[in-house]
Parts: sequence; C-alpha cells; structure tokens
Amino acid sequence: MNHAADLPNRSGVPEHGRVPKYYAVKAELEALLEELGEGGALPTERELAARYEVSRETLRQALRDLLIQGRVRRKGRQTVAAGPKLEQPLSLASYTEGVRRQGRVPGRTLIELERLGAERQLAAQLGLAEGAPVWHLERVLLADGERVGLESTYLSVARLPTLAEEFDPSSSLYAFLTEKLGIGFGSAEERIETVLATPREALLIGTPPALPMLLLHRLTRDTEGTPLERVRSLYRGDRFSFTTRLGPGA
Amino acid sequence: MNHAADLPNRSGVPEHGRVPKYYAVKAELEALLEELGEGGALPTERELAARYEVSRETLRQALRDLLIQGRVRRKGRQTVAAGPKLEQPLSLASYTEGVRRQGRVPGRTLIELERLGAERQLAAQLGLAEGAPVWHLERVLLADGERVGLESTYLSVARLPTLAEEFDPSSSLYAFLTEKLGIGFGSAEERIETVLATPREALLIGTPPALPMLLLHRLTRDTEGTPLERVRSLYRGDRFSFTTRLGPGA
Repeated sequence: MNHAADLPNRSGVPEHGRVPKYYAVKAELEALLEELGEGGALPTERELAARYEVSRETLRQALRDLLIQGRVRRKGRQTVAAGPKLEQPLSLASYTEGVRRQGRVPGRTLIELERLGAERQLAAQLGLAEGAPVWHLERVLLADGERVGLESTYLSVARLPTLAEEFDPSSSLYAFLTEKLGIGFGSAEERIETVLATPREALLIGTPPALPMLLLHRLTRDTEGTPLERVRSLYRGDRFSFTTRLGPGA
Repeated sequence: MNHAADLPNRSGVPEHGRVPKYYAVKAELEALLEELGEGGALPTERELAARYEVSRETLRQALRDLLIQGRVRRKGRQTVAAGPKLEQPLSLASYTEGVRRQGRVPGRTLIELERLGAERQLAAQLGLAEGAPVWHLERVLLADGERVGLESTYLSVARLPTLAEEFDPSSSLYAFLTEKLGIGFGSAEERIETVLATPREALLIGTPPALPMLLLHRLTRDTEGTPLERVRSLYRGDRFSFTTRLGPGA
C-alpha cells in the first residue's frame, strides 16, 4: 500500500471510468509547461494537435482548462507558461499592501465614482436610512500593470462628504481613510465564493468570458463598531489565491 | 446620477458592447427562478427555447452558467431552482460543526484510508523524515445526504498508530482527535483558490465535469505548535461559500 508517487494530488481517473482524451493531453501539456518554465511559449495549436494525435477541438479543450486554472496565459498570439498564483492575505490591510508584500506593483484604474441613493439592503448594512446618499467607487485592480480584479466600494456620503474632491482614485482608499481622515479599521466580516464573470466584468478585467472568479463580499466597521464600507471584490481565479491564519478563537 | 435600481450588482453590459444573447436569456431565466422559488422546476429546454425565441444551443449555454453558479440544480430529468449556497465558517472547527450550525445534517463516505510513504514536501510540512509512514484518509463530504465535497487528510502514522482500528471514518476526525486522543487544535494556515474538478473528483462528487470548485489547503498544528495534519478540501463552488471575521491583528 505504498504509493508515494501518487501524492499529493491524485488527479487521474483510477478506479472506474476512462481518462477522457482531452485530460490525457492536458497532463502531457502540464509536463511540457514544467519543462518550458514561466514565460516559455507553447508550440502552435496545429503542432500540438499533430504531436499528441488529437483533434484541434480536443486540444483546445485541454488548453481552455489550463487557461482557467492559470497554468497558461495568452501573450499576444502566443500561449505561454504562467507563473504561480498571487497569494493575497485575507486581512483588514488593503489590496495595495497585500500585493506589495509579494513584490508586485499595485495599481488601480477608476471606472466610476458616483453618488447613489442607498437601496434597502445596502442602507441597512451601512446603518443609513433607505435612499440616503452613498458613494459608489468602482475600480479595476492591477498588479504589475496587469488587470487582475474589479472592486466596488460603497460608503456613506454624509460621513465622507469631500471624497470626490480629496481622494485620488488611483491611490489606496485605505491609506486615504486612515492617514488623511484618521478613521481606524476595527473589524470586517468577509464571505468568499466562486462565480462566473458577467460579460461586463469580463470586458472590464479583460478576461475570457465565463472564467471562474473569486468574489469577496466585505462589510468593514471602524474601531467604534460603526459600519464604514461595503465592498464587493472580484479577483481572477486563475491569478489569485487567498491565505489566512486560523487561531483557537476563530 | 441617482441610479438606485442599479445597485448592488450591475451585471449587464452597459457602457460598450452588446449583451450576448445567452446572457439576456439567462437574465430572463433568473427572473423566472425567482418566481418559482426553491425546488420549483423549469419547463423543458424545448419550451424555454421557444418561449425566448433562441436556439437550443443558446438556451443550454444560459442553463450551464446557472448550473455553475448554483442557481439551478438537476433533479432527475428536471432542472429546478436551487437554494442559497451554504456558508461555511473558515475556522479551526470541523466541517461537521460548520454544517450543523446551518441546520444541515453532515455526513462522510470513506473513499480510502491507506498508509503511504510521505513524499518530500508532505514530510517537510508534517515535520517527518522523507518516506516516513503517513495515513491518507480520503472522504466524500455530504450535507443532507448530498455530495458536496471531497477531503484528503494526511497524518503521521507514528503519532496515530491506531487510527485504522479505532477511528470510524464516517464520523468527525476532529471529534476523534480531540475527544478520544485529547489532541488540541492550536492554529492553522489556510489557502483558498478556485480550481476545476478533475474527472476523478467530478466522478466522486457527482458534479458535471469542469465545474469550478473551491479548494482549501490547510496545515493544522496542535496546541504545542507541532504540525498535526495536512488537509486538501474540495468543495462544490455552486453549493459553498466561506465566511470569516477579520480583526485588527489579522
């Protein structure tokens, strides 16, 4: 019963069923990517289909899986071996800080900053009356200039009346709130799920449609326990993972 | 600039680009599912394609998205409106406890319990010599009898020599370790990502192939700080979300 070679992830189809053809090709491609190393380019689809003696359709299915899993990425007309996923800590610290810790350059592109009337659920979460004015700040998140996510933040206008004038939307909102306004972050409730990008989101982030994404919902409170912001952050599932440390109280 | 109706998730394709046909159908189906309520059955594909005046192919693409997102599920030959995703807390507590808290009945089906020689990375993580004997416990996770995940746990045989004889694999491993053996859980490092199920995993969990899953990697230490277990848990992305509470130290 010693199958050390099987560890840690036995990903084939051993007990019952056959290995689908595309999956066998995918395993071959994974070995090839390992050899090529990060940034190494795969041969053309035509060459690969010939090499593995499969149809272009089967080959594309294998490549699609590898793309979704972040093992390859498109670079112009080429398909190249991708680097490891970014590991973002789940913490009260900002996106900016998490990305910097990994030696990447964080960035943000403003999609919009607008004033809205809070709908019922949002108003309740932020402790406001229904219809009270809220800021909606939507930004594309960048790492080393690459678009990796999309973030929507909702904040009370009454609490932050000068946001539109004083805040540089390409900078860290957390830094603005803590350093400029002296608002401390006390706690947050966060929920993580996997979703498909909508066509609009895929367009803004520049991902293939229907790429699985990691979606984080967050409600942050200040040090007084007052709700401060509701955030909806969507991260490319092929580029991000999230880490956390659990203690006995958690 | 008051677009309250757009909140909270503006998921269309407003600024540029057209709404793809399948996406428009998906929005119609979502409204229909809302009316039907949990467990309500959709009309047949043929009827729906006729109703929305789209091809069967377009309709299937919309249904596939809804299936991946957990908005519908298959029930025999029918497609019915699914309930909300389970919210599992990220905590040192067990799967069992998390599922019970939501009023569901947890369960586990043994796939295998075997002795392996630890490969290099696993040995290092568990603080063992390479090749040292480890248990590999693989189980399908159930909620109300439905298969929702697949869990692989690796533990030192030297530390738990009687596991195979004394542990009931349909019960909670955490309860066994803490209550029977008096081993306390001290802390864990956890990493979450989204991946596609392999054909083997899809077979074991009974999901459609290539359904996005949430994958949790965990290394748990006991109260002395000694590595206790390495766990790889795969959860259906259409059925699970994970919650956590972040504090100032986190």
